[in-house]
Amino acid sequence: MAKMNENFLNLKESYLFIEISRRIGEFSAKNPDVQLIRMGIGDVTLPLAPAVVQAGKKAFDEMGVKSTFRGYDDSGRGYDFLREAIAGYYKGFGAEIQSDEIFISDGAKSDSGNIGDIFSDDCSVIVTDPAYPVYVDSSIMGGRGVVFTDFLGSDLPEKADLIYLCSPNNPTGAVYTHEQLKKWVDYATAKNAVIIYDAAYESFITQPDKPRSIFQIEGSRNCSLEICSLSKTAGFTGTRCGYTIIPKELMLTRSDGSTASAYSVWSRRQSTKFNGVSYPVQRAAEAVFSPEGQRQIRDNIAIYQANAEIMTNTLTELGVEFSGGINSPYVWFKCPNNMDSWGFFDFFMEQANVVGTPGEGFGKNGAGWFRLTAFNTRENTQEAMKRLKNILK
Amino acid sequence: MAKMNENFLNLKESYLFIEISRRIGEFSAKNPDVQLIRMGIGDVTLPLAPAVVQAGKKAFDEMGVKSTFRGYDDSGRGYDFLREAIAGYYKGFGAEIQSDEIFISDGAKSDSGNIGDIFSDDCSVIVTDPAYPVYVDSSIMGGRGVVFTDFLGSDLPEKADLIYLCSPNNPTGAVYTHEQLKKWVDYATAKNAVIIYDAAYESFITQPDKPRSIFQIEGSRNCSLEICSLSKTAGFTGTRCGYTIIPKELMLTRSDGSTASAYSVWSRRQSTKFNGVSYPVQRAAEAVFSPEGQRQIRDNIAIYQANAEIMTNTLTELGVEFSGGINSPYVWFKCPNNMDSWGFFDFFMEQANVVGTPGEGFGKNGAGWFRLTAFNTRENTQEAMKRLKNILK
Repeated sequence: MAKMNENFLNLKESYLFIEISRRIGEFSAKNPDVQLIRMGIGDVTLPLAPAVVQAGKKAFDEMGVKSTFRGYDDSGRGYDFLREAIAGYYKGFGAEIQSDEIFISDGAKSDSGNIGDIFSDDCSVIVTDPAYPVYVDSSIMGGRGVVFTDFLGSDLPEKADLIYLCSPNNPTGAVYTHEQLKKWVDYATAKNAVIIYDAAYESFITQPDKPRSIFQIEGSRNCSLEICSLSKTAGFTGTRCGYTIIPKELMLTRSDGSTASAYSVWSRRQSTKFNGVSYPVQRAAEAVFSPEGQRQIRDNIAIYQANAEIMTNTLTELGVEFSGGINSPYVWFKCPNNMDSWGFFDFFMEQANVVGTPGEGFGKNGAGWFRLTAFNTRENTQEAMKRLKNILK
Repeated sequence: MAKMNENFLNLKESYLFIEISRRIGEFSAKNPDVQLIRMGIGDVTLPLAPAVVQAGKKAFDEMGVKSTFRGYDDSGRGYDFLREAIAGYYKGFGAEIQSDEIFISDGAKSDSGNIGDIFSDDCSVIVTDPAYPVYVDSSIMGGRGVVFTDFLGSDLPEKADLIYLCSPNNPTGAVYTHEQLKKWVDYATAKNAVIIYDAAYESFITQPDKPRSIFQIEGSRNCSLEICSLSKTAGFTGTRCGYTIIPKELMLTRSDGSTASAYSVWSRRQSTKFNGVSYPVQRAAEAVFSPEGQRQIRDNIAIYQANAEIMTNTLTELGVEFSGGINSPYVWFKCPNNMDSWGFFDFFMEQANVVGTPGEGFGKNGAGWFRLTAFNTRENTQEAMKRLKNILK
């Protein structure tokens, strides 16, 4: 008898985006001529950089010729050319990692969820609220209890096993300082816990004093692994490439008190349940880290950053409390006039024809907050902010 | 304290390919001038078809232009164009599946392992021995007990929850008849079990009376899901694309006696822990199913099939017992002169300079057997068979 994994029954239905669609549908049916400005989407809008496209096409050409064709990537961990490019990129901002500590994957979402496979089911999971829903949902699927705290961990439990951190944060756009992140590293070290650090938005950090990787923090190699992605860095949301870095020093605990290398256990997991990333995609990803690729993706990021600045300037002018925008494509603000998240969603859509994301969809602490993204055109962003000013006058 | 998933401690180290490498290394060190013919590799050797390369390149071009750029594939299940192409392909050989029952993935290996997420940990798993090691290893990682039987299930246990079947089989090349597969379907139905059917080698089936999909068998939709891949069909081992088909009728059992749709649970798993396959790869995969793509991949498969025929003709001539080769790129034969698998491995390498795969690496029932693959050139295959005849004279 094939019994289901009943942990799935403990998942909350993900109403957020369904409910957003429903409300948009209802509004559009009543107002067929209104063009909504969509500022809720967490997806990039600018195309792949030319260097990336060229590299992907060249790789497909290689795949069509017997002498340059590539079959299985035997390690399943990614090609050296890409892992070395990433290690070099990290070195550029002061994080020393070895290229063979990098596991190439199809994206941060897969790794954020699949990483649970290497841990015991009875590990509890600490998540900062509000949060990217994958941390919570994949933990629940694995039968793990989730404990919530805030971004700074001001209210940390006595017991800690696994800790998901995300900086720059989705959805709030907040970024840890070295000191704030060091506190998490010290806590994890004291508890013999593992930090799963999601750095998917690191390329949006503009303030050079903010850490872009947890491996810039002393002591982190013994208590952390890091998951990152090219989705936001280089517009790979539809091209799919990410990576996980596991330091060789990171140890998991066995019930007899001995330890096992997290690196080895993840290697075994990946070699059994994964077969590597498409070769053309790995070549496209490699091009992101070339000097030409870096210039081109920086141009795209600058466009999003300018949009974020338009939003933060408007919110500052309006006296609305917000975070993010500076080191992040997300701007997270307190709903004006003490509206709740959904109340402001309706108000903003109906009065200004702009759609954003109600903060309470990301957790209890998101209630009364609202998320806008910079992944839009300059024109739309300016127009949306003009309308926000009008309706709040 | 981050405890490890101690189920990993129950995995056998995968010595097979490590031991093969070690023995090859030792031999080559002693015989530096000898060029070995490698017939052990399960990887394709012919390049991608021109139609596939063109489609992949065109898609990368689209990704570089704002108006045709694609970000997240919101469903995470693959684009309609590919799912419809696959449903059409299945229809071509008489298996009726709906395109929305297809989940596109990065490959059969990922799906074979990850599918375990939807089942209770206390499900037991039936595996036919010899087998592709992923079925066993991923079950053990999930804490599940594995029960072995043979390909025809002549010795089936009273209790059955999950059943991995693979036809054409890796490593034996054997293929179920409709009647043989119907027996499995009846057994699974009676036990309320789920068959996880691996059809990765279906495109090698030449005998039209053999089923290419479990969905050609009556009653299968209520007890089966099917995993397939373009790796062997179209040389996608390094390009990475596969799919899993879950009929809407397939139900999992809940402990309160009610049922849950396997389709819905897998949808939830994939939308949480997966973010879809690269758009250029999906376009490349779509081209496999175009008339032009089908002609081109058929030409490649014909080359491998001709190699398989060279091998089966030789084994027939030599009076060696074998299976496979006819509907499969694998030829599986009993080691001559009652040699054991490793004894024959050494003998074949030392006397004929040909490398294959010892059957016992695939399970207890593989002891005394040997696997050769058709993924080589015609010249190498002919030369290897000539040498086999010489050393067995």
